[in-house]
Amino acid sequence: MRTQVVVVGSGPSGLLLGQLLAGIGVETVILERSSRDHVLGRVRAGVLEQGTVELLEEAGAAARLHAEGLSHAGISLAFGGRLHRIDLAALTGGRHVTVYGQTEVTHDLMDRREAAGLATVYEASNVALHDFDGGAPFVTYERDGVTHRIDCDFIAGCDGYHGISRKSVPERALKTFERQYPFGWLGVLAEVPPADRELVYANHERGFALCSMRSTHRSRYYVQCPLDDHVDAWPDDRFWDELRRRLPAQTAAAVVTGPSFEKSIAPLRSFVAEPLRFGRLFLVGDAAHIVPPTGAKGLNLAASDVRYLFAGLREFYAEKSRIGIEAYSVKALARVWKAVRFSWWMTTILHRFPETGEFGQRIQEAELDYLVHSEAASTALAENYVGLPY
Amino acid sequence: MRTQVVVVGSGPSGLLLGQLLAGIGVETVILERSSRDHVLGRVRAGVLEQGTVELLEEAGAAARLHAEGLSHAGISLAFGGRLHRIDLAALTGGRHVTVYGQTEVTHDLMDRREAAGLATVYEASNVALHDFDGGAPFVTYERDGVTHRIDCDFIAGCDGYHGISRKSVPERALKTFERQYPFGWLGVLAEVPPADRELVYANHERGFALCSMRSTHRSRYYVQCPLDDHVDAWPDDRFWDELRRRLPAQTAAAVVTGPSFEKSIAPLRSFVAEPLRFGRLFLVGDAAHIVPPTGAKGLNLAASDVRYLFAGLREFYAEKSRIGIEAYSVKALARVWKAVRFSWWMTTILHRFPETGEFGQRIQEAELDYLVHSEAASTALAENYVGLPY
Repeated sequence: MRTQVVVVGSGPSGLLLGQLLAGIGVETVILERSSRDHVLGRVRAGVLEQGTVELLEEAGAAARLHAEGLSHAGISLAFGGRLHRIDLAALTGGRHVTVYGQTEVTHDLMDRREAAGLATVYEASNVALHDFDGGAPFVTYERDGVTHRIDCDFIAGCDGYHGISRKSVPERALKTFERQYPFGWLGVLAEVPPADRELVYANHERGFALCSMRSTHRSRYYVQCPLDDHVDAWPDDRFWDELRRRLPAQTAAAVVTGPSFEKSIAPLRSFVAEPLRFGRLFLVGDAAHIVPPTGAKGLNLAASDVRYLFAGLREFYAEKSRIGIEAYSVKALARVWKAVRFSWWMTTILHRFPETGEFGQRIQEAELDYLVHSEAASTALAENYVGLPY
Repeated sequence: MRTQVVVVGSGPSGLLLGQLLAGIGVETVILERSSRDHVLGRVRAGVLEQGTVELLEEAGAAARLHAEGLSHAGISLAFGGRLHRIDLAALTGGRHVTVYGQTEVTHDLMDRREAAGLATVYEASNVALHDFDGGAPFVTYERDGVTHRIDCDFIAGCDGYHGISRKSVPERALKTFERQYPFGWLGVLAEVPPADRELVYANHERGFALCSMRSTHRSRYYVQCPLDDHVDAWPDDRFWDELRRRLPAQTAAAVVTGPSFEKSIAPLRSFVAEPLRFGRLFLVGDAAHIVPPTGAKGLNLAASDVRYLFAGLREFYAEKSRIGIEAYSVKALARVWKAVRFSWWMTTILHRFPETGEFGQRIQEAELDYLVHSEAASTALAENYVGLPY
């Protein structure tokens, strides 16, 4: 079998790339290790930059997003017992973010792909990437005990941190950068209206807390917790009590509690692998970089990579030019590192870091106080939060 | 003997407070442990915020500063082999900084004090502060073997980190915050024209470097060095070579070398003691807080404290109101912590920190790159550098 681009991974970045390529007549096959239901069962964040929304529009997958997504013109920072709103729209010339779950994005893109009759192979095991350093790469995989081979022009590795794509690159060709944070996020999903119309990021002496939502009737809350904590130690009552303790009184009073239907602890880390291109293999999104969720950048960075890669591939197929694909890694990484920095910074100013001591806490307080009172500093936060230019 | 305010320490903050108080008819005696020549022999930085210059004008001690000081409308950040200018004036509605050595500021203030015939006791030993918690404080000191006593309304502790003022406060009444940095600055003073008209702050893989000056013919250069380094290991040639290696080619080529006439290594640290008032004793400047020199904030923060304290004392003597002096600590500390944060941040983005590893280096590069390309981020740097509002 032969196709133009094999996409490894059926998450939002692989699906988005597939739809964009389909739009210019480039054929793709998506190989996905899991089942369709498993992919759709993953719970992920969902704050979309305007640039991400525009790319979903270009992929023809933004109709439900526009109908059901929540447009947010601001976020709030909570500290010292008070709520301080950052007016994203006013500070960035009218830019917004859109709250729309990553699961829904994946769903919409899958629907489009299926409607167009494009090939996705689920439960493809033992995926292996071959000869991507030469001119004729191919991918092999097994399904129902049978080994298949797909020859292609390019391979797009959109299969996440644990996927096979990055692991297929010889270690000596990769440079990796990593920062582990000494805490995790305990997250809860509940069918209750959110405490605030917009996201609230709270810095509290007991630790960070985040009030988020998936819709007007579904809330997503997080509290910072030790890395060795367990969800079993957090019955709902304890979670709600802890959350409210970390919020200003007015926000705490607005928290509507209810039974949680998802509860999990995730570690926070920053990770970057360089470069993003190895001959005819491209790494995209989580396959090459992870950010802590504090700045809501994970999905948006994946979309940003897709944008650069799509531009390069379009140039290749339309104009026979290799310039775009050769520039992919450098261009995408420049934006990646800015978002890695922003996510690291948001994490740093909002969480308790036991190792920085009281000096570090006061620096945080001084920074937050400066941040909400300086238009320049608020604008710097806002322009990063809504997404820096491409 | 009796006076209204005893000022401990004849550095710039004590002298400035003395002149401002003299201007409203409040009598002071300054007690200084060292000799006049020793005080004037101290080499210190000299980048003055506009607010500091205005305060020196109010004290009648700005004539020579205006004649000889260098007005700077920008600074440059150097990294990745290039120079990036931050246009302070354009970003802050026309504000400048003035390069004028702290030694010269001290000299001018001393001249004014001497011309006005105001009392300064040099070589006052065993200075002791008494009963500042009650209504009738007094200060004792020895000179030429004789013990003297001065009764007063207030004591202003302007005697620096190692002075007696902070040490006179019971430890249980003080809360201190400290951060030591894992490096020092090796500084050189030479009678040569500066490499650049403005200050150049360089981030380089070999470590931080700073091109500064005292005048158009006297340069002050610094390079980051290990804490256990010794000036003996740094003959002039080695210093100039190392300095030039850390600068972009165009700046390195403009460095004019010559024999150094001062060479020293200073550790970098952040320190804050709270509060700044204990009954009728006030701590001012270095007596209560130290910042690393990266943001040029040390002298400016001392002047900022003096501004708040002077306002409080004026209210007390003119209107018999204690509101101003009771608010001194909170008001002054709010600005202190913002400058402590800024100095920490400037230090953090410009120096090599071995413990943050390659991830930390990339974060620095991403931050510097963002900083010089975002107007909001450049403005945040600029507004802090020229001095936040009082």
